[in-house]
Amino acid sequence: MSAPDPATPASSRHRVVIVGGGFGGLQAALRLGRAPVDVTLVDRRNFHLFQPLLYQVATGGLSPANIASPLRGVLHRQKNTRVVLGEVTGFDVPGRRVLLADGAALAYDSLIVATGSSHSYFGHADWERFAPGLKTVEDATAMRRRILVAFEEAEKAATPEERTAWLTFVLVGGGPTGVELAGAIGELAHWTFRDNFRAIDPARARILVVEGNDRVLPAYPPDLSAKAVRSLERLGAEVMTSATVVDVRPDGVTVRRADRHREAGAPVDLARDERIAARTVLWSAGVAASPLGKRIAEACGASTDKAGRVPVQPDLTIPGHPEVFVVGDLATVRGADGQLLPGVAQVAIQGGRYAARLISARVEGRTLPPFRYNDLGLMATIGRAAAVAVIRGRHLWGYPAWLVWLFIHLTWLVQFESKLLVLTQWAWNYITRNRSDRLITGGPGDERIPA
Amino acid sequence: MSAPDPATPASSRHRVVIVGGGFGGLQAALRLGRAPVDVTLVDRRNFHLFQPLLYQVATGGLSPANIASPLRGVLHRQKNTRVVLGEVTGFDVPGRRVLLADGAALAYDSLIVATGSSHSYFGHADWERFAPGLKTVEDATAMRRRILVAFEEAEKAATPEERTAWLTFVLVGGGPTGVELAGAIGELAHWTFRDNFRAIDPARARILVVEGNDRVLPAYPPDLSAKAVRSLERLGAEVMTSATVVDVRPDGVTVRRADRHREAGAPVDLARDERIAARTVLWSAGVAASPLGKRIAEACGASTDKAGRVPVQPDLTIPGHPEVFVVGDLATVRGADGQLLPGVAQVAIQGGRYAARLISARVEGRTLPPFRYNDLGLMATIGRAAAVAVIRGRHLWGYPAWLVWLFIHLTWLVQFESKLLVLTQWAWNYITRNRSDRLITGGPGDERIPA
Repeated sequence: MSAPDPATPASSRHRVVIVGGGFGGLQAALRLGRAPVDVTLVDRRNFHLFQPLLYQVATGGLSPANIASPLRGVLHRQKNTRVVLGEVTGFDVPGRRVLLADGAALAYDSLIVATGSSHSYFGHADWERFAPGLKTVEDATAMRRRILVAFEEAEKAATPEERTAWLTFVLVGGGPTGVELAGAIGELAHWTFRDNFRAIDPARARILVVEGNDRVLPAYPPDLSAKAVRSLERLGAEVMTSATVVDVRPDGVTVRRADRHREAGAPVDLARDERIAARTVLWSAGVAASPLGKRIAEACGASTDKAGRVPVQPDLTIPGHPEVFVVGDLATVRGADGQLLPGVAQVAIQGGRYAARLISARVEGRTLPPFRYNDLGLMATIGRAAAVAVIRGRHLWGYPAWLVWLFIHLTWLVQFESKLLVLTQWAWNYITRNRSDRLITGGPGDERIPA
Repeated sequence: MSAPDPATPASSRHRVVIVGGGFGGLQAALRLGRAPVDVTLVDRRNFHLFQPLLYQVATGGLSPANIASPLRGVLHRQKNTRVVLGEVTGFDVPGRRVLLADGAALAYDSLIVATGSSHSYFGHADWERFAPGLKTVEDATAMRRRILVAFEEAEKAATPEERTAWLTFVLVGGGPTGVELAGAIGELAHWTFRDNFRAIDPARARILVVEGNDRVLPAYPPDLSAKAVRSLERLGAEVMTSATVVDVRPDGVTVRRADRHREAGAPVDLARDERIAARTVLWSAGVAASPLGKRIAEACGASTDKAGRVPVQPDLTIPGHPEVFVVGDLATVRGADGQLLPGVAQVAIQGGRYAARLISARVEGRTLPPFRYNDLGLMATIGRAAAVAVIRGRHLWGYPAWLVWLFIHLTWLVQFESKLLVLTQWAWNYITRNRSDRLITGGPGDERIPA
């Protein structure tokens, strides 16, 4: 049934194609390393990115290479696995082929799609220029450039108004990324930049987290949201809740706050619009699934939810297509309680491993019970030695939470050979409060940087 | 005489403006840290770059942050020093002001210009697109991208000819940069990429150093040139001497070789043109002084040499302008033997320190004997545990030369806080033959990358 493709070596073995080398795709590939199958991992990028630490690159604490591992390097010992650097443009589901931008096609017997998600600007695509998000290494270095340039421009500013606007940082969205970024910018301003400037006091930077819900970290228990706010405030960051950004421009944002003290009978338009002059606006709100979600869903005769995610069955396959798996935050997977699983690394990792195990089992003529998510918890750091975490139902905060965070992240990085370096870097940063990767790189040719 | 500028705080102290935060400028600033003067260091970039290790960034061994230090961080303890991030466009020598692109001006009593040099394409500016050079962090990451993409494209190549062209790397210029790059690419191909590909054997890459002189490293003694060639050959690199590149295109170069076996009476046009199909051509030939050399020379009524360098007096000042110093490879400085000093870090470092010492001395009413270069030697590495060096007249090669190279470079990096990290990274690379920063970053929007 599958059309043979000259680029794919003929083989009688079961062929697995994995699209995406993130947490889900890479774990699937690793888990299939000893299975009697031929594995092809295809990604646009030549590296796996440890996305939970991307905010540290955006704030100069780590270099991109510290949190990225070349896919070929990670998989080089797996003789049954090849890595293809390429852009997937679509799927020929009846012919069981993945179509690439360069015209090539990859034939499969089983397919795992794990291309994750990007930011959503809720229909305001024009805001992206002024309020970049954080999903790729390029996003992180562009964000780093913006943050560092803002302090430089403040140092040179001719008027107090200009200086204030350059020293105001708005984080749109109070989820983990927004909170972690705000904490890291607070550290830069209070510690790393101490004595670095002559005309400004960087510690006077205003760092504002704008969150639409009534508290930051809405996926966490309320007591931890409160702890996070206290940690942020210690670093000079403020939190504005029940507030929505309704306009973004190069020189600031407009925030609409639901009036919390609305009196009985008062008109609804008591909602107030506030203009905040800020030259640095960073986007950490909204998630949009990779466009390949829609492509694979349509090719299978299914449809996506409004965020573009693919609804999957309990075995992570698309209904009617037991050979097509969707894992990670490209899929809508429900937990034992019927709730949608969050878009975190663990869901992708466990999903990728499950898909690999099920494919191996099927090749051996066995089957497996449905996917079951093992909830290991949630965690977010807010600067040096401060974090919040839920670990198996227990709430942790402050230094203990941070130690747990450190331990878990280092353990994870081990297999990607970066542990020693990241540990050295972190120890160095911790002792000296320094951030070594404070390089303003990329030029005016970079269209993500406003002039 | 100097026009006061609102941006410069009024001060009765002697004002020193340093243009350029490279080896010369930064050393001058550091040396003036305790002098009774006000120092302003102005640079386009916010970091000092350890250029001798840039080739390791270009080949994935180190990250940019490993060899760069934020200028504000390095100088933050010097209360008399401020750092200005800005582009210098010219000099008002009679008014004693440095002019910036944003319209501001920096008033000085003494001026040190240390803006270094860039590559020269010998009038073929159009070659730059196809054969990038290596002077900036962006150059290094763009070069890294090209090298890594070449192996990826070879893996996907449809024909043997294409594959060969993608696996051919031409280094134009056999000076230290060309030799070091060739060695590092050889290591990538032979060691780092082992087992990483399925369709190609990366060790079959052809790495070709094209040098116009009759030997590589012409500034070194002939026996060390021969040792370098042997080290290169061990890594699969070839050397083509007495050969000039006469054309560069996206798919290869044309090389003209002076016929070494020219018979008596044979016509001159025995020179042969050879076309070499190569998708990766890297430029490591030719040096052109920064355009600010011409500006300061003209503003002082002097002229530059044909490479754009500023001839200076034995005290490193421009004739008739004892307040204007030019240091590093922007200046033509002659050693005790009347020979032009080479464009290496030590010349810039010692020049910057001398200028700072002379300014301090003058402020105290003293003077100093002329600048005297203390020749510490020359060194170049060719891959793992191989180098050539001349240290105080002694010739070293192989492992001992590499140990000396390692020791000297680590000692130098100490003051820039990166020692521990670079040492860890190198130890890791040495043990595992890995190169961690093998990230293909930057997109098709980057005009330095051909489509």
